[in-house]
Parts: sequence; C-alpha cells; structure tokens
Amino acid sequence: MSEQQATARLAEYAVAARAGDLPEAARRETLRSFVNVFGCMVGGSRHEAVEVAERALLPFAGPPEATVVGRSRRTDVLLASLLNCLSSSVHTYDDTHAEAIIHPSGPAAAAALALAERMPVSGADFLLAFHLGVEAACRLSKAVSVAPAKGSIAWSQTGICCGIGAAVTAAKLLALNEKGMRRAIGIAASQAAGIRAMHGSMCTPMMPAHSAQAGLRAALLAEAGFTTSESALEARYGFAACFAESANLAALTDGLGERFEILANTYKPYPCGIVIHPMIDACLQLKREHAIDHAEVEKVSIRANPAALALCDRRHPRDEFEAQVSLQHWTAAALARGRAGVRECGEEAIREPAIASLRERVEATADPAVAPDSADVEIALSGGRKVERKLRHCIGSAARPMTDAELEAKFAGLAEGVLPAEATAQLIADCWRLDELGDAAALARAAA
Amino acid sequence: MSEQQATARLAEYAVAARAGDLPEAARRETLRSFVNVFGCMVGGSRHEAVEVAERALLPFAGPPEATVVGRSRRTDVLLASLLNCLSSSVHTYDDTHAEAIIHPSGPAAAAALALAERMPVSGADFLLAFHLGVEAACRLSKAVSVAPAKGSIAWSQTGICCGIGAAVTAAKLLALNEKGMRRAIGIAASQAAGIRAMHGSMCTPMMPAHSAQAGLRAALLAEAGFTTSESALEARYGFAACFAESANLAALTDGLGERFEILANTYKPYPCGIVIHPMIDACLQLKREHAIDHAEVEKVSIRANPAALALCDRRHPRDEFEAQVSLQHWTAAALARGRAGVRECGEEAIREPAIASLRERVEATADPAVAPDSADVEIALSGGRKVERKLRHCIGSAARPMTDAELEAKFAGLAEGVLPAEATAQLIADCWRLDELGDAAALARAAA
Repeated sequence: MSEQQATARLAEYAVAARAGDLPEAARRETLRSFVNVFGCMVGGSRHEAVEVAERALLPFAGPPEATVVGRSRRTDVLLASLLNCLSSSVHTYDDTHAEAIIHPSGPAAAAALALAERMPVSGADFLLAFHLGVEAACRLSKAVSVAPAKGSIAWSQTGICCGIGAAVTAAKLLALNEKGMRRAIGIAASQAAGIRAMHGSMCTPMMPAHSAQAGLRAALLAEAGFTTSESALEARYGFAACFAESANLAALTDGLGERFEILANTYKPYPCGIVIHPMIDACLQLKREHAIDHAEVEKVSIRANPAALALCDRRHPRDEFEAQVSLQHWTAAALARGRAGVRECGEEAIREPAIASLRERVEATADPAVAPDSADVEIALSGGRKVERKLRHCIGSAARPMTDAELEAKFAGLAEGVLPAEATAQLIADCWRLDELGDAAALARAAA
Repeated sequence: MSEQQATARLAEYAVAARAGDLPEAARRETLRSFVNVFGCMVGGSRHEAVEVAERALLPFAGPPEATVVGRSRRTDVLLASLLNCLSSSVHTYDDTHAEAIIHPSGPAAAAALALAERMPVSGADFLLAFHLGVEAACRLSKAVSVAPAKGSIAWSQTGICCGIGAAVTAAKLLALNEKGMRRAIGIAASQAAGIRAMHGSMCTPMMPAHSAQAGLRAALLAEAGFTTSESALEARYGFAACFAESANLAALTDGLGERFEILANTYKPYPCGIVIHPMIDACLQLKREHAIDHAEVEKVSIRANPAALALCDRRHPRDEFEAQVSLQHWTAAALARGRAGVRECGEEAIREPAIASLRERVEATADPAVAPDSADVEIALSGGRKVERKLRHCIGSAARPMTDAELEAKFAGLAEGVLPAEATAQLIADCWRLDELGDAAALARAAA
C-alpha cells in the first residue's frame, strides 16, 4: 500500500491488531515501558506543576470518574488524562525512543488509564491499546522529524506526535472501526501542537499532557460521528506537509506488525534531558574512580553530540525546569555530589555554591562524530592533573538498557513519600502482570 | 522596543489598554465584529457538528455556569467556549481580516462570553478584551503568514493564531499583570494548532473552537501561576520560528495602540470561503441583468486570484463542509438559484441536478494580477452569446464593507428558527449598546 494512504494504513493496522499478535519481545518491552511511565506518573504527582494545574482546572471539572494518580481527588476522564500525563513527564524522567527522539508513553498511558475507569477494559486490551499508541507516535515522529525526513528541532516532537498516539490508543479501547480510527487520527492531527521554546518551564510537561487529553477527546469525538479529513497525515496541506520540510511517510507505514518501534524505547536513569546522560555517566565514573573533590576541579571539557548543545546548553538555570535541560548543571551536580537523582534538580541543588561554581567551569563543544549516547569528558584538576573518559553507550541507551530490576528500583524510589512501601511493591508486581488483570482500572485505583 | 521583546511588548500593551483609549472608529468596528460573530454563533448553534460535539463532550462537563448559545443546556465555562466558537464558525459565515486572512472574532468572543458568566464583566470591559484578542490574533497572523513574512498556506492561520488571541482576551478579563499576560500568551503558543487539510469537514470549525478553549485555559493556568517561556513568540525555537520560514515580528508589535487591525476586518455576505465571494457577486449580477436560465449556460470561465484555486478548487463536494470551500459549487448555485445563503450549501442544493450539472461547466484559472476581492467571470450561453463581468471589490470586502443594516439583516436571518423574532431584535439592539451594559453576560443568557 502506498504512502498516499498512510492514514488508512495506520488505521487498518490498529483496528485489526490483536493482543496475541504481539511477539514476546514487543509485549515485554511494552510492559517495561508501562512500568517505567507509571512509576513516573506516581512520582511526579506531588510536583508543583501538577498542583497548579489541578488548582486552575478543577473548578471546571466534570464527573469524578477517574483517578488522579498519587492524589486524593478523582476527576473527569478528560482532565484526569491531562493531569496524569503531566505527572508522568514533570520530572522529565519518562521514556525516550532512541530513534524517534520522543517521549511516547505518557500520553498513551494517561489516555488509556482514564478511559479504563469509564468502561470495562481488560489488562490485555489495555496493554495492546497502549502499545499501538506508542507505536503510532514513534513512527509518526520518524516520518516527520528524523532523517531522511527533514524536520525542524523547533517543534516539540513529543507534543506534535503523541496526541495522535493517544488518539490511536483511545480509539482502540473504544473499538472504533477503520473510519472511526481514521477520524480519531485526523481530529488529533488538527490539534497537534508543541514548540520547543517551552523547554525549561512547566509547559514542557504540559505539551504531552495537552496531547494526551486532545488525543483522547479526538477519539471520543470520532466515536460520536465528528468528521475530519480521513487522510490527515498525508493529505495536501496535511500533518506531514505542515511539520516536515520533506516527510518520509514510509517510516510510518512500512513493516507495521512486523517491525516494532517499542523495541527501541529507552528509560532514563537520570531525571533530565537524555542528551545529558552520557556526560553524567562519565562524571559519576570519573569521580568514583579518582575520588575527585569538586574543589580541585579547574575545568571540565566535553565533546558531545551537537543535539546536546542545541537542546541543553543552559549555563545558568533559574529553576528546576531550566536545570532539567542544563548540561552544565548536571555535569556539575554529578561531580559535586556523586549522584544524579530528582534531588539534584531541586532548588537546593541549583543554589548550592559548589554546584553553581562548577557550572561556570564546564565547557562543551559540539562534535558530530560523537554519537548521541556518548560523550568525551576531560577534567582538569588542580596541580595539572587530568583525567578523562570517552564514554560510549550511556546507561539507559538502546545499547545498554536499564534492567527490569533497575526499573523497579526507579519506580520504588519515585513512589517514596507518595504510596506506602507495601502498596508500591504490590503495584509494581501488578504492573508486570498487567495483561493478566481482568480490570486494568484497578491499577489506577491502587495508585490513588 | 525591539522585536526581540515581541511577547513582552504585546503583553505590556494589552495590560495597559483602557476602553477609553480606543478611537471611535476602532470601537465601532469592534462592535460591528461582535454583532456579526454573535449572529453567527446563534445561527450555527443547531448545526449537526455542534450537536455531535455536545453529545460527545457533555458526559465530561463540569458545573453548568455558562450558556451554550442557542441551545437548551448550560455547561462549564471551558466547554462553553469550545461549543460557542464551534457554532460561530460552523457555517463559515464569520469574519475575515482582509490582510491577516484569518477569522479572528469567534475564539475571542467565545472565550469572553464564557468567562463573563463566571465573574462580573461590564460591557465596556468585555468589548475592550474582545478587541485586544482580535488585534493580537490578526497581528500575529501578519507576523508569521503574510508577506513580507514567509509562512505556509498549509497551516490554518485561524487555528494557530486565534488561541493566543483568546488567551489575551481572557487574561485581560482576569486582570492579569504583565507577567501573567506573557504567560497566558506562552501557554497558548505551546498549544497553537491547525492544519488546512481539515477544510471541508467538521474539523474546520473545530480548529477555532479548540483554540478558543485552549486560549481561555491558558489564561486560567497563567492566573494560577503555571509557568512558561515568557518570550514564546520570538524565542529561539518559539512560535515564530515554528510557523514561519521567516517571520516579520514588526507586524505584531509596530504601532500597537496607534494602528488598529480591527479596521480591516470584513464580514461575509455569503456562508463560504471568502475567496469565492467575488465570483458569487459576479454571477448574481449577471444572472439578474441578463435573466440567465441555468439550462442555457454552456461554460463559466473564471480568472481568479491564485488563493481561490489553492483553497477552493473542489468540483465535487460530497457534503456541506466540502461545498463551503468549493468555488465550482457556489458559482453554480448562484447561477442556478440567484441567491447564495445557508440553504445554498445544504444537502438539497448539493444534490440539485441543475447545480450539479453546472459545477461541471465551471473552469477557473489562477491569475496573480487579479486581486483577492475581484474576479473576471465570462459566461458562454447557448447560441454563441457571451456575457462577462470584471468584478472588482466584492460585497463584504474592505473596499465595499457590509453596512450596519446588512449586518443586522444577516443576524436576523441567522437567528430565524433559533430565537423568537422579538428576542432577536432585542438582542441585536443590546449588542449595539454592548459597552453600556453593566453585565456582559446578559447577552449570553438572552441567546439561550
């Protein structure tokens, strides 16, 4: 089938897909993606950005049918999808597809969780619908933003692609037919949004959150018969034409059901822009091996993939959101503290004199020869000593994925202070057996 | 102040603006814009697209604080802004800014109307806030889509610009300070969306409707303290960088408070794409003057501005939404029926054999020498006779605006079957004295 029918092809595949069709590796990686993002959702739920959004929007909320994960209130299904996705991405600790360069799980998971509280959804159906939304979003991003497509880094690829992913997830749960699925995709495409200038503010997580809600709403509108272009992705003046200088729609449609994007999904060991991870790994290793004291560091010289500088060259972060995307901050924090967790991004860390001082001594250079999961770090120490690390394949990259145990530890760490330890342990166990659960909504309720 | 501070400049102006500052011409044209769009809102309220959207979204609606214009239910303020804007644009009968080529009033009016039912808003404050939102949207569209800016016709300029307009309107009513106004603009910018492929479906009016709701929500989030880039419009990887190949931010900021875009706003005499209006005028004139019977028409040859073909070359419309943007349909309908109203866009007209047959005989050629408000129409009649009209400045264009009386007649026609005639007459009278009303929400309530 030609790229002239990309929307129809995606819809046809998503409607026909059955849980039993998924190869074990794809099923397993979908589960790992869900465990990771659900932990992020629990862990982000007490963040100020979620508090502010809840305070602003609850006065307009409808029937309390859905859980706001990690919080005490329930709210309407549409608002729940927004708030839960906001929680999942607020620490920028969620997943990253290694090739599509998006964070695909939050919107699909939030849309599915909210809908599962309004209608009966088995764990197996939930997992399949979540899988399909992630697959659609990743393929779409490759089609409009990754070479050979010519896209622009000015777009938030997560923002522009994940609403369509959430729409596919929701339309699958609603059991829409092919026309309905095409319409859900089209309505979501007409509301696709996200600009990268927002990075470094509460709007960073709001972009996926908005896409989760818009995608879920698109599916609900399609179910009711709302019409749209049914070739929204490939049409003249359509999604691809808008978001790509030249698109590569084959990346969206080739090998559907045979090649699984979920296999290239990765999970973050550090709550910051993924392009910073190689330098954190290098600094943590060097500090440990050489027992470096921050006071003896004279200069940190980094050669990094150009994307690291394009996205995270931010020497003077003013708050947590700016620190999340500051390579200078994380390099400094890793060297000063020997760890790189949520606390290393807090106000206290940002203002810590040792870290602030170190940030001034980090010099980064873009080098296209350095892969995105790698970095060369040289640290000049007092007395003329130098140590260096050519870090290849950082932890959490496709070549060195986080293990299941590391994912569980990450979940447990994020849930600390939100859920009791036993409840967390039970929740993690339930997540791993998601496709055996009779009622997927039990997970949401257990995370309240 | 430089274009480097476009967002701050717009925010500063909007926060400082006072109703008394508006020159009489600008105040009067703002009123005319409101009369026109409110009539469209009443007239569109029974449309199937509004029914479908209401059916899909009411199950998630919050407290019934706001009127859904022309309908029996009230709903929450956010959903009301969406549904009312949907009504205002569903017949594509709303306004068009002659230079920015957007339909700016619906989103700003819908946001203001909904908010006015939640908090006390005087008519004068309402009119000013509505004015500022329209002004912001028109200026923004000129900054990213109209030469000398290099934009792309693939975007729905109304979709991408009017959410920011609605945010400015709502933030003004909420009396946000400059920081709050910048944040409202930034949050709305991060959700700016709209692709032109949707034209010809229910998603056409959903794009402004979505922008109305997203803009209003952006202002509510900003009021609660949600953060964002405060230079979202001009920032690296910001709104202008995303939506324009090269932007012209001077169009956004130059002459704020001195030059008023509202003065170039125009109102439609026909419920279809504005680029089709010159050929409708020409056909109606020729039919009247020469008593043309559709059966004697052999061929209709049109020379039109290239935009008419780019947007409305659609010979075989399958439904009302496609007919709205079909130059062949409206040319045929005007020649067959001698009129061009909402009924000429209905299913019956689309299927009428005389109109369907005439659509096949319409040939349009793009000619950059023909202005957008003009068209050359030549009709070949049986027996070798030819009649022609070089139509310049169609009705409703900036050079030949609709009169106040024509606007009132349009409102009354749209309200037929929705409101009793006396109620309509009173509503029109109240609209004209909007800035004397103590409570702007009275208008919304009177249109229920």
